[in-house]
Amino acid sequence: MSKFLDRFSSLKPEIDTGFSSTASGRFLNENGMPNVRRKGLNPFEKYSWYHVMINLNSWKFITFLILGYIFTNIIFAFIYYAIGIDHLTGIDHSVLLNELMDVFFFSSQTFTTVGYGRIAPVGFLASLVATFEAFLGLLFFAIATGLFYARFSRPRAFLKFSKNALIAPYQDGSALMVRVAPFKNNLLTSAEVIITVAISNRDQSDSQTEFFILKTELPKINILVLNWTVVHKIDEDSPFYGDVNELLKTANVEIFTQIRAFDEGFASTVIQRTSYITEEIIVGAKFLPMFEPSTDRETTILNLDKIGDYEKVNLP
Amino acid sequence: MSKFLDRFSSLKPEIDTGFSSTASGRFLNENGMPNVRRKGLNPFEKYSWYHVMINLNSWKFITFLILGYIFTNIIFAFIYYAIGIDHLTGIDHSVLLNELMDVFFFSSQTFTTVGYGRIAPVGFLASLVATFEAFLGLLFFAIATGLFYARFSRPRAFLKFSKNALIAPYQDGSALMVRVAPFKNNLLTSAEVIITVAISNRDQSDSQTEFFILKTELPKINILVLNWTVVHKIDEDSPFYGDVNELLKTANVEIFTQIRAFDEGFASTVIQRTSYITEEIIVGAKFLPMFEPSTDRETTILNLDKIGDYEKVNLP
Amino acid sequence: MSKFLDRFSSLKPEIDTGFSSTASGRFLNENGMPNVRRKGLNPFEKYSWYHVMINLNSWKFITFLILGYIFTNIIFAFIYYAIGIDHLTGIDHSVLLNELMDVFFFSSQTFTTVGYGRIAPVGFLASLVATFEAFLGLLFFAIATGLFYARFSRPRAFLKFSKNALIAPYQDGSALMVRVAPFKNNLLTSAEVIITVAISNRDQSDSQTEFFILKTELPKINILVLNWTVVHKIDEDSPFYGDVNELLKTANVEIFTQIRAFDEGFASTVIQRTSYITEEIIVGAKFLPMFEPSTDRETTILNLDKIGDYEKVNLP
Amino acid sequence: MSKFLDRFSSLKPEIDTGFSSTASGRFLNENGMPNVRRKGLNPFEKYSWYHVMINLNSWKFITFLILGYIFTNIIFAFIYYAIGIDHLTGIDHSVLLNELMDVFFFSSQTFTTVGYGRIAPVGFLASLVATFEAFLGLLFFAIATGLFYARFSRPRAFLKFSKNALIAPYQDGSALMVRVAPFKNNLLTSAEVIITVAISNRDQSDSQTEFFILKTELPKINILVLNWTVVHKIDEDSPFYGDVNELLKTANVEIFTQIRAFDEGFASTVIQRTSYITEEIIVGAKFLPMFEPSTDRETTILNLDKIGDYEKVNLP
Repeated sequence: MSKFLDRFSSLKPEIDTGFSSTASGRFLNENGMPNVRRKGLNPFEKYSWYHVMINLNSWKFITFLILGYIFTNIIFAFIYYAIGIDHLTGIDHSVLLNELMDVFFFSSQTFTTVGYGRIAPVGFLASLVATFEAFLGLLFFAIATGLFYARFSRPRAFLKFSKNALIAPYQDGSALMVRVAPFKNNLLTSAEVIITVAISNRDQSDSQTEFFILKTELPKINILVLNWTVVHKIDEDSPFYGDVNELLKTANVEIFTQIRAFDEGFASTVIQRTSYITEEIIVGAKFLPMFEPSTDRETTILNLDKIGDYEKVNLP
Repeated sequence: MSKFLDRFSSLKPEIDTGFSSTASGRFLNENGMPNVRRKGLNPFEKYSWYHVMINLNSWKFITFLILGYIFTNIIFAFIYYAIGIDHLTGIDHSVLLNELMDVFFFSSQTFTTVGYGRIAPVGFLASLVATFEAFLGLLFFAIATGLFYARFSRPRAFLKFSKNALIAPYQDGSALMVRVAPFKNNLLTSAEVIITVAISNRDQSDSQTEFFILKTELPKINILVLNWTVVHKIDEDSPFYGDVNELLKTANVEIFTQIRAFDEGFASTVIQRTSYITEEIIVGAKFLPMFEPSTDRETTILNLDKIGDYEKVNLP
Repeated sequence: MSKFLDRFSSLKPEIDTGFSSTASGRFLNENGMPNVRRKGLNPFEKYSWYHVMINLNSWKFITFLILGYIFTNIIFAFIYYAIGIDHLTGIDHSVLLNELMDVFFFSSQTFTTVGYGRIAPVGFLASLVATFEAFLGLLFFAIATGLFYARFSRPRAFLKFSKNALIAPYQDGSALMVRVAPFKNNLLTSAEVIITVAISNRDQSDSQTEFFILKTELPKINILVLNWTVVHKIDEDSPFYGDVNELLKTANVEIFTQIRAFDEGFASTVIQRTSYITEEIIVGAKFLPMFEPSTDRETTILNLDKIGDYEKVNLP
Repeated sequence: MSKFLDRFSSLKPEIDTGFSSTASGRFLNENGMPNVRRKGLNPFEKYSWYHVMINLNSWKFITFLILGYIFTNIIFAFIYYAIGIDHLTGIDHSVLLNELMDVFFFSSQTFTTVGYGRIAPVGFLASLVATFEAFLGLLFFAIATGLFYARFSRPRAFLKFSKNALIAPYQDGSALMVRVAPFKNNLLTSAEVIITVAISNRDQSDSQTEFFILKTELPKINILVLNWTVVHKIDEDSPFYGDVNELLKTANVEIFTQIRAFDEGFASTVIQRTSYITEEIIVGAKFLPMFEPSTDRETTILNLDKIGDYEKVNLP
């Protein structure tokens, strides 16, 4: 923590980032979630199942629902079978497999409240279990369809970040630049950015880390329509002041970028963040334009696949 | 960018509007959405289907739902037919058309979980497909009814803006005025306005644009009950200072007005915006009163069809 | 507007209240909604049906739902009857009334997706209508149950205000006091109060009104647990400074009180307001305590029926 | 209120805590809800049933739903029985008990809209009641499943607080410290803490209480990932300045800690609070580290069972 820390002596490190200066490894994972493992709790305490379900990959979520549906029906099929299939009308008694099939399908017809009635309960116990199963089915589908809709309608920012953070020429000197753009048909207003940087010595045995909030030229935007190049001017108050190549060689640098905005479609505040590690910071480069007028000059075309495009330039 | 830019030399253009000074065409469309086309993404990435569905016109939305419902039932009808209609009880076998009809109606009765049971599955495959279709139906209607209700209950500001922005006499000089009023039985509190103006040379080849946030006499209102005339006083700090007719002749001007407020019925923040282009700015006019006491003087009557009414007046 | 306006010469009237100084009648009705009638719009534009339904009295809302349900079923009953009851199985053909009854009940069993199947569609047209009715039923109940639940779970502040505003002794002089208390098992945090007063001459022909925001001794409270006596100290900056009895005799005074807070159960911001007119302002009175220790001194008892209790006192 | 109050003479007590200085007993209960009983209202006014249901223990909530379901079905069973079971087809007339059972199950099949149709209404009255019951069932399950899902998806902070507040060495002097950590897979951003302390004389007959908001070294954190040790430095502006052991012996002290943050999964603001009473304040102790690097040093492990771990130390 020697050479580059000298440079920081006049800077006030931030202490309100929520990360500890003695934490290990990358701070944020690529998915924007913190790189922390929790211990000392049982699984029921440890997880918010709502968050698990909301963040699950779509295919896994659908598979989970279908498996839950099939599993519940199998359980009830066995209960009806145990009670006795003579408590159900319309069962095909030809072979055992048909009997099992029919109790399974009776269960699913009850659980979903379809209730064709071709198979129907007649005895007390089967009727009672069916009464309970229909009730349970309504609760099950409350959660299942609630989550299904919540995943569909969940407030998200829908922002694309550039793959790299650049050290680019800016005014008389240079600036750290990150580019972000909305990529869907939503509309973000009152967008705010916070950029934090974590700097620690390359040498693993000394994992002390300093955090700095980087001042940006334009921390707030009224309506986020086109791309937004977030600019942190590198002056004597910046931790990147001086020989930035040397800094990136001797230290692990991680840049956290968080955008907070209001989305009208969702009528809610949305947040998105990403982080850039040392290898993702490119010294001496500037972003290429990513929008252009349409040929009729009546609208502007935003090329989202160019969000990360840059060219090498010399720094002053 | 010659004549009128001179006047701006002492003004600080705003850079945090989210629009680029090199974008083309009108900035906001009439519907308040930005005039931008996105490229470089596949359609699945490009759209937030929630936003598409929420913003769709009512008739299109209903048609979309009905077509989705019919289409799904046709698919399942063919599956049941392919499996074999002998796996279903109660089918009218008289003619092929009747058979097709009955599998279609069986499908719809399963998909909606009505399940009369006149037609019911007996074989394994048909039962299995029906089990799956009922499950799918519940998920389909979770999205369909969720969106249907979300469209009905979505937080919106319900504001009417005047068709024109006026340059009206104000105090000793003049002011830019825009009028807005709530037009429904909702109640907006803590309403805030932001007015931004974009000014660019008429000459298309030089599309450089400057943005200014206009100071307003009263940027915040506690309870928005009657009309609100938003007033931007034209003094030496205003981009409209000087010969405003000349400005409107030589430059493209677009005025963005955004209102943000809290609605108690929705218990949510709501936002609405509009924009006025050069042709919609009227120099030398003032708004006519749009409310009057009731005949018994016990209440106030707000005439919403008069929101844009103005009369020509001479500016000082 | 003579005598008492002199006193106001040194005060800056508020202009951001949202009310016009030339509006007529009481500003807020007793229910906290503004006293304004809207004109110039057709009923579809004029109302947010969501707000209408959310604010409807419970009995009216339930009646509305039931009538909508019965009415829809009658419509569909006639459609099925027009199509021909031979397209339905299980109809009791004994008398016309029984036929009508059975199509009505078939309709309701379809609309709610109960679908017993005792009566079931067999012909193409009846099946098609039933297919559509089940779909419509799901949409109808999406809105009906959505609203039913929204009414039940809608974020509200649940505050009780004192019936009167008092002019009470305070420190060396006097203060305007209003009392408010939460009356349900919810918990309000970060509660803020805004008090505005509207003062206009008694003489109806001169309906010019001045608005003032009243400074309060304690405009914000962290956790609103017991009663909150909102205190506006009457000093030379207050519109009530001087002979307050004279003011109330010669002017119409209306005091608006609005509380805004965060409720954790709803996880939402909630707002409630009320207004006090001249007759509801009592000069020379102070609120009586409304809470007391429990007999075991282990908890505090809040007497909500005493929220408005006061005793007459002499002002200094 | 003698000895320790002298010390407070230079401090400004807070008056905006929402608690009265004359309230009795503990201010917040262990569950974070205020220790207040409400009187003077009937039960319908007194409770927000939404809050009751949302805060109910899970087992009680499920039991309540099941009892409501069974109870409603029993009521309707008796209605159908009173109408006459000859108005229902498919009833098992063998013995009275079977008849009663069958009307009960018919009711449940109607209420849940399963509608097998084995038992189905034929007469006018039974059909009418069934029509109404299916409608009621949809409303009942709107509330039941709405609450069920709301409980599952309700925005909560999921924070664990340390069991004790410590007076620990800090810089040259000492500080009051409280530790908090997120314990689930949610992500809190923009977390803010407010610490308030209530101090009253041990002597019950003199229950005057003073409130102070404690300044913290770091009142806000950007991303709350690891534990957060909230630090209130004890200097001459602190109510704990001087002989803290003496203070805790002669006075009842209660420390309220409230955290407010934004959760992205819920897209909502969340709040959690706790309070520490005199016995839970430990003088001369410091928290032990609760996180450590993983063995591969690639991530950080947070031990949530160590949240309250401390060791005794000497204060300077």
